[in-house]
Amino acid sequence: MPAPHRIETLRWVGDTDGHLVLIDQTLLPVEFKEVACRDVETVWEAIRSLRVRGAPAIGIAAAYGICLGLQAVQDAGEGGFFDRLGEVRDYLASSRPTAVNLFWALDRMVAKAQQLRADHPPRAILDALVAEARAIHDEDRAMCHAIGRFGAALIDDGSGILTHCNAGGLATSEYGTALAVVFTLQDQGRSIHVYVDETRPLLQGARLTAWELAQRGVPATLICDSMAAVVMREGRIQAVITGADRIAVLAQAHRIPFYVAAPTNTFDLSIPSGDRIPIEQRPREEITHGFGRQIAPNGIDVYNPAFDVTPAHYIKAIITERGVISPVTLANVRAMVGEAPSPGSGDAHAPRR
Amino acid sequence: MPAPHRIETLRWVGDTDGHLVLIDQTLLPVEFKEVACRDVETVWEAIRSLRVRGAPAIGIAAAYGICLGLQAVQDAGEGGFFDRLGEVRDYLASSRPTAVNLFWALDRMVAKAQQLRADHPPRAILDALVAEARAIHDEDRAMCHAIGRFGAALIDDGSGILTHCNAGGLATSEYGTALAVVFTLQDQGRSIHVYVDETRPLLQGARLTAWELAQRGVPATLICDSMAAVVMREGRIQAVITGADRIAVLAQAHRIPFYVAAPTNTFDLSIPSGDRIPIEQRPREEITHGFGRQIAPNGIDVYNPAFDVTPAHYIKAIITERGVISPVTLANVRAMVGEAPSPGSGDAHAPRR
Repeated sequence: MPAPHRIETLRWVGDTDGHLVLIDQTLLPVEFKEVACRDVETVWEAIRSLRVRGAPAIGIAAAYGICLGLQAVQDAGEGGFFDRLGEVRDYLASSRPTAVNLFWALDRMVAKAQQLRADHPPRAILDALVAEARAIHDEDRAMCHAIGRFGAALIDDGSGILTHCNAGGLATSEYGTALAVVFTLQDQGRSIHVYVDETRPLLQGARLTAWELAQRGVPATLICDSMAAVVMREGRIQAVITGADRIAVLAQAHRIPFYVAAPTNTFDLSIPSGDRIPIEQRPREEITHGFGRQIAPNGIDVYNPAFDVTPAHYIKAIITERGVISPVTLANVRAMVGEAPSPGSGDAHAPRR
Repeated sequence: MPAPHRIETLRWVGDTDGHLVLIDQTLLPVEFKEVACRDVETVWEAIRSLRVRGAPAIGIAAAYGICLGLQAVQDAGEGGFFDRLGEVRDYLASSRPTAVNLFWALDRMVAKAQQLRADHPPRAILDALVAEARAIHDEDRAMCHAIGRFGAALIDDGSGILTHCNAGGLATSEYGTALAVVFTLQDQGRSIHVYVDETRPLLQGARLTAWELAQRGVPATLICDSMAAVVMREGRIQAVITGADRIAVLAQAHRIPFYVAAPTNTFDLSIPSGDRIPIEQRPREEITHGFGRQIAPNGIDVYNPAFDVTPAHYIKAIITERGVISPVTLANVRAMVGEAPSPGSGDAHAPRR
């Protein structure tokens, strides 16, 4: 399985008439394969079927998807071009209708086009849209590296770090959020060991995080989610970086600092409390048939929340691209994040996909 | 899938020349099938390949296995009979060499035979051994029902009960230890709802506990292990019955009582502290290939402890067949359990198989 040392979750090849290439994450960790997306339909299918997943990565894919959808109409008149833009926007929005970053990216692309509408021809607008998609991509990359630098400063040399799910390069442009801290420590030549929760039901930890760490040669050990308590008790863990309540509670009991690594655009200051965050319910088959075979009796009732909410008092610090928020109080969050409109919701609302 | 309402994990059919029938637990929950064991080799294979599992059930199967192994030599002389007894004992002991209840049952059977050796012919000794195996079986059944009665008195009507792994009828003769509490509540017409941790890596919760509850019509909901915190936070859980540290810690944080249900013969008073309980390390493939397909990258390091240890201060009470121990102090444990020799080790040492 040939794979690059540096993982590029997505990349745009060529200029305005170029295309998008992305890693097919459904085949990992057994097979590394990239998919070339030369039309918006292929991007839609890739988002829909989770070939690309993770809020930032979905946003980037959708931005490039807008460009692909407009390539055929770049020589059309202004009316035809903007009609098509609306179509493509709505079509991409239907790929994963609950993914907030998807809407944030689509809205940013449409706003850019509208801003240029009065005094630029479609071809020039498309040039600008490709540049805008690249800007979203580049900003994500820079944000991840900034999170990595701020987070690395919090971790002692020789630490064991526990992580949950995949908040790595595959969920973003290349470097991740929680894993950005790990990769930065590695780049700095610091000694660490990562314990990877496999993350049932969809196994993003086992399939994706373990794969990313193996690709980059970071020392890592895979465990089942239920074994987090054992490794903490045995003194193997000095820090937890990610965002899941169950881990937070355990970390608290074992006096291990729990960090959430997240960009400032994932703060939703419009929600007064974590209790108001809606929790997506996922299909029952993820639990009863999660691995291609039946593992539970017919008819058993299933409860499958896609997220949980980590109470702020369990969080030692939130690592953002602008700096570290600690202690996690509303005043400190507002001071760092401000009142800017945000694409995502949930402070420590742990993504499972 | 036809299956009885009352689950008989094992049953002896006939008299001294009878045979053992057991549920093939490797086929559950998709298929209910019983295996007839007419020779000791079939019993050995059933224990080895986990068709029968759970410490008490393994002990019962081994006791009947001794009888099967001696049927062919019941008309032999005393020397031949006892030579064969030694052979059969050693052979069965090799089926799962770390299962302490296996040795306890084998030793009890051998001791019974030795006790009768001086003044009984082999045929009469074999009669007595079948009776002894039935006694082990009956004692287990009675013990489970006693645990159920003591435990049921601790649970409020309308409770949500969280359980982990399978400490049910399939691990014992018929009624279980932790699940005995649930079944007793059901028999008493009390209203409860059970949340079942699927229990990675081997899914005994999803495959076996969920199946037992479905068979008996107990309202139950299957969750992934990592969702225990969510259901606690949402107020769905009023009691936890089983024995896993991670759950204990969560229950403590959410102020939910955590009960361990266990027979007195699982106390090991020779071990001064839970820290001295040896923890079995299981094969890496249970995590990397647990479901018949590869779910983790090649070469990833794996840590797979089969058990964890629940600190006594997290345990609200230990429910035994002799009564309830609470608070869990050494003095209270000694008062209930005494200094009798015990087959098992580990106070709140949660079995995974």
